[in-house]
Amino acid sequence: MAYSAEELRNIFESELGSISYPNEPKLLYNPIEYALSQGGKRLRPVLLLLTNQIFGGAIEKAMPAALAIEIFHNFTLVHDDIMDAAPLRRNVPTVYKKWNQNVGILSGDTMFAQSSRLLAKIEPSLLPEIIELFFKTAIEVCEGQQYDMDFESQEEVSLETYMEMIRLKTAVLLATSLKTGAILAKAPVSESEKLYTFGIHIGLAFQIMDDLLDVFSDQELFGKQTGNDIVTNKKTWLYLKAYDLADEATKAKLDSAFGLSNQFAKVKVETVTELYNSLGIKELAYQEISNHYLKAVKVFESIDLPDETKEPLKKITLAMAKRAF
Amino acid sequence: MAYSAEELRNIFESELGSISYPNEPKLLYNPIEYALSQGGKRLRPVLLLLTNQIFGGAIEKAMPAALAIEIFHNFTLVHDDIMDAAPLRRNVPTVYKKWNQNVGILSGDTMFAQSSRLLAKIEPSLLPEIIELFFKTAIEVCEGQQYDMDFESQEEVSLETYMEMIRLKTAVLLATSLKTGAILAKAPVSESEKLYTFGIHIGLAFQIMDDLLDVFSDQELFGKQTGNDIVTNKKTWLYLKAYDLADEATKAKLDSAFGLSNQFAKVKVETVTELYNSLGIKELAYQEISNHYLKAVKVFESIDLPDETKEPLKKITLAMAKRAF
Repeated sequence: MAYSAEELRNIFESELGSISYPNEPKLLYNPIEYALSQGGKRLRPVLLLLTNQIFGGAIEKAMPAALAIEIFHNFTLVHDDIMDAAPLRRNVPTVYKKWNQNVGILSGDTMFAQSSRLLAKIEPSLLPEIIELFFKTAIEVCEGQQYDMDFESQEEVSLETYMEMIRLKTAVLLATSLKTGAILAKAPVSESEKLYTFGIHIGLAFQIMDDLLDVFSDQELFGKQTGNDIVTNKKTWLYLKAYDLADEATKAKLDSAFGLSNQFAKVKVETVTELYNSLGIKELAYQEISNHYLKAVKVFESIDLPDETKEPLKKITLAMAKRAF
Repeated sequence: MAYSAEELRNIFESELGSISYPNEPKLLYNPIEYALSQGGKRLRPVLLLLTNQIFGGAIEKAMPAALAIEIFHNFTLVHDDIMDAAPLRRNVPTVYKKWNQNVGILSGDTMFAQSSRLLAKIEPSLLPEIIELFFKTAIEVCEGQQYDMDFESQEEVSLETYMEMIRLKTAVLLATSLKTGAILAKAPVSESEKLYTFGIHIGLAFQIMDDLLDVFSDQELFGKQTGNDIVTNKKTWLYLKAYDLADEATKAKLDSAFGLSNQFAKVKVETVTELYNSLGIKELAYQEISNHYLKAVKVFESIDLPDETKEPLKKITLAMAKRAF
């Protein structure tokens, strides 16, 4: 029986929701339930379950890893929100804002431990490979977050370094979700490697789209304050590309706009957006997204399975890169 | 070939020191190297390796788990120091003090991931049990830290609740170290369970000794500011026992002493210490330590191995409960 991505998402959501937590200590478990019940697209577990399915794996054998990856992902969000001082996520207060910073640190740690504990349910013969992949990825995600924070105080950040940062911070976990699904279904190594590469390109496209949507979408749709990256002078793909292309006069205008204090947030966002528009940044970002999209398609086509078998995965991941999922 | 505890400690220290870290990002890996190179007694890995040895296990098969437990333990210290606002550990600045809070959070997360990744080197057939034990314990350690923080704002904390807190925060990881050594040596389940129980009592004794040494030792020896628990009004075993025993007049004196602000830290520590002395708290703490010490000895004697085989483990753990190791 083959499930659609939507069905897998519903099954996953129900499994995630049926995890029961101890009553005490409340300040540890209430924030975890809060963080995990805010919905979201559950992209990573759906990708894992879908990949597992197309390679003939049984859903119940892949579910613990799917839960592990989603809980791990949410742990990183809880800690990132502290480090990035982000007040909102998915339109509701972040954990450290709703409670406090210590609660954010410790409930995050507990989520990481919970997610890892789920791996005990995986078939023992597959465990060494899964453990190595899962925690190598966890380390890379931390490296990505560190580079991201480093950028704040660095004068010069190249687009190349930026791409490496988003590979680590975002792409590797998507790639690992796909690869894990394949490993659990005992797909050939060649095929699970292809899925990893596919995931990296999808992830890069996804993150540049994320940067784009922060400027060119509204809060209602996206669940974040629009222009937040501009307000916080975050060195996004758009920011770096703008400085890359700008002549001296435009650079001075960018400097002056980014120099505005928070009381002029609205003007700041408007001015920077106009400068981005004058440089054609939106179109260039779409072009960069397309490049990775095409690379993803190419490796996807080489996966040794019938087209109709692969179709659901193609559909969801490419929609995802465009954020239409 | 049987190694002494001291030899195991040296071998372990050398293995830990030979782990190589990436050069970048520096703000992620420098703090990790710093945190792991501050020495310490390496109690947990030594206990793991020693238990493994007495049950006939090979050291090289137990080393990854020993490294995992020590790195995990140090991760918890890095995060606890942020949450407890502790400036010093082992006489040097804590990670978040030397760098900053975000560095403390993220390098701690990375240490947790590194420690977990080491488990991939364990024999696959043992992995489900080891993973379940390791991460169940990790969750309990977080619960213990949360209870500890909860106590700060709670008026009434019973000694019983306190013992449960230190069981979670300290004892379970020692117990898990011992049990893991036994599991890796394929000891019978009955025996690995006994080691767990043994470790719990040793851990409880160890923690009450820790509370005691904060008041009744000097900074030079212990590597912490003496009386720090008193200065911060921490609800330790000594504090709770004192309130338990004090009459109304003495309670008022305790309240008044604990009410002193930080500019009177020295007087505060002296006054509370005198009140503790007048109530015989030091002796009562030693008595409580002895109780757990005796329970530990009893279960230890029931372990189904020749006395001379078990001797090195007995020696180190009991010395440890007395903090003579």
